[in-house]
Amino acid sequence: MAQNQAKFGIIGLGRISQRFAKVLNTCDQALLWAVAAREQERADSFAKEYGAKRAYGNYLDLMNDPEIEIVYIGLTHNFHYEVVKQCLEHGKAVLCEKPMVLTKWEAEDLVACAEKNQVLLMEAMWTRCLPASLKTKEWLKAGAIGEVRYLDVQFSFHVEYDPEERLFNPALAGGALYDAGVYPLEYAYDVMGGFSENMHSMHTLTPNGLDSFDVITMQYGNGAIAHMVCGISLNTISDAYIYGENGHIIVRDFLRGKRCELYNDQNELLDFYEEEAEDGFIYQIRHAAELVKNQKLQSPYIPWQDSIACSELFERLMREWKLKE
Amino acid sequence: MAQNQAKFGIIGLGRISQRFAKVLNTCDQALLWAVAAREQERADSFAKEYGAKRAYGNYLDLMNDPEIEIVYIGLTHNFHYEVVKQCLEHGKAVLCEKPMVLTKWEAEDLVACAEKNQVLLMEAMWTRCLPASLKTKEWLKAGAIGEVRYLDVQFSFHVEYDPEERLFNPALAGGALYDAGVYPLEYAYDVMGGFSENMHSMHTLTPNGLDSFDVITMQYGNGAIAHMVCGISLNTISDAYIYGENGHIIVRDFLRGKRCELYNDQNELLDFYEEEAEDGFIYQIRHAAELVKNQKLQSPYIPWQDSIACSELFERLMREWKLKE
Repeated sequence: MAQNQAKFGIIGLGRISQRFAKVLNTCDQALLWAVAAREQERADSFAKEYGAKRAYGNYLDLMNDPEIEIVYIGLTHNFHYEVVKQCLEHGKAVLCEKPMVLTKWEAEDLVACAEKNQVLLMEAMWTRCLPASLKTKEWLKAGAIGEVRYLDVQFSFHVEYDPEERLFNPALAGGALYDAGVYPLEYAYDVMGGFSENMHSMHTLTPNGLDSFDVITMQYGNGAIAHMVCGISLNTISDAYIYGENGHIIVRDFLRGKRCELYNDQNELLDFYEEEAEDGFIYQIRHAAELVKNQKLQSPYIPWQDSIACSELFERLMREWKLKE
Repeated sequence: MAQNQAKFGIIGLGRISQRFAKVLNTCDQALLWAVAAREQERADSFAKEYGAKRAYGNYLDLMNDPEIEIVYIGLTHNFHYEVVKQCLEHGKAVLCEKPMVLTKWEAEDLVACAEKNQVLLMEAMWTRCLPASLKTKEWLKAGAIGEVRYLDVQFSFHVEYDPEERLFNPALAGGALYDAGVYPLEYAYDVMGGFSENMHSMHTLTPNGLDSFDVITMQYGNGAIAHMVCGISLNTISDAYIYGENGHIIVRDFLRGKRCELYNDQNELLDFYEEEAEDGFIYQIRHAAELVKNQKLQSPYIPWQDSIACSELFERLMREWKLKE
């Protein structure tokens, strides 16, 4: 089995990478080979805790490790573009935390770079790899609820305002849209089959002028409407509702996607799907490992186009809100 | 007890009036005195079934019945203005089905008429009289969730398109906004303490050009956002979510308001309220009967201003959608 394991490196050793490493160690198809931080000590400590074979005090050394097949980027998103690009240029496959980047140009440049170097590039939109998400897509594709007419999806959590915190730091690309918004936006892109130009948004601001709660509505050519909410100032329910002409699907806590339910037009439950994994990261890790082993360039669950479209929408919204030029 | 009962008349003897009469007959404070339809036979049959003392073959005879203290108007809304006005001019208190009227001018004219004749005028927004609705208001007033930041309220049901049906008949003021929209709109007016000029809407059309599904978003001066959905083309969940800075309230099936729940910011259930009435109309009937007996002109739960503001919003939306001049 061991020789079929994809050898992972991890760059950026914060909280999300701890979770990633922990789950990776439960995945038969993956092996935690090396980790890298800007300080050797931090890398050593992380490597020891999670059993990585190598610990590097700088990112380049990890990229130059010939054993590594795929690098997971757990850095804050303001550093993604630069580091992902370097990895790709070193011939490493990349699984990059969401949001992958913040501008369309950066997204397209990374995609071009992945193509040029013939390596996998995948945004870590792990929720799309969950069995419940795949079941939802399967229902939609089979026409179980007919044409989608209305999507209602929101992800908003509450963090006390603290200008020292990353989320409220403009230099670290803080704000609700990037951190929380990427989930409902890419969810809508996936379910609705794209974004619409016919869009309207409202937002509120943190005391230091970042977006804190955003409501985005899109209407498509066929009249269908998508309603997306994200925030860092309120705890909202995170169920996703997909209403079709013949019924609807509710994904309970769509981010974790533990359970999805299929209803007919009379609100009668027709079918449901529940999964049992302790941590949903496992599906993403397994999926990425398989893609690497099969020398795929992109994930069928998280196509490049979706990451490009999302970063383009970020730009449009930030311009509309006058939060960026 | 009998002499303290408010004597009701009913004008318009369709489905909603059947339900009203049935519930009225279970209410100690109210007595079904007379009913009126345009045909004597229909009135006779209704009176017999629900035990009304008098049956009139035209509305004026009912208005001239000196025993009647309050008239319930169960006609389709296109007839409301004219008949309500006549009732008020005959010195009768009026409980009028929703929406009371479709234009601001009509609403203001009826209010002036009620004031001039010193009689009760009340829109039958019965949901506001439910104990769970009153409990919700009590929580809000006591600051249980702090300042309201986001309201998410929707009421949409699905009726197969049929141009012969009232809902799809422009002459009978069909469409989603009037029939379904009045609920979330007045709900938002109540919870948010008004409407905002800063509004955006999207809508879809029935094959014959009436609005079939509407999404309306408002942002208030303090940044708070209200999201209202109504429709006659889809069955949606009808829970209302009121998010405040310190927690939220969920009203399950807000139209019927059987249960409301109070949560803190960590989504922990702090309190809930459930009621048991078989049909929620009972609270409205009891309330209207008390108001009449106490010679009140308007209901504290459903103030005139709310009906005026809602009809004004109808006009604005219909103009924006180019469905009315």
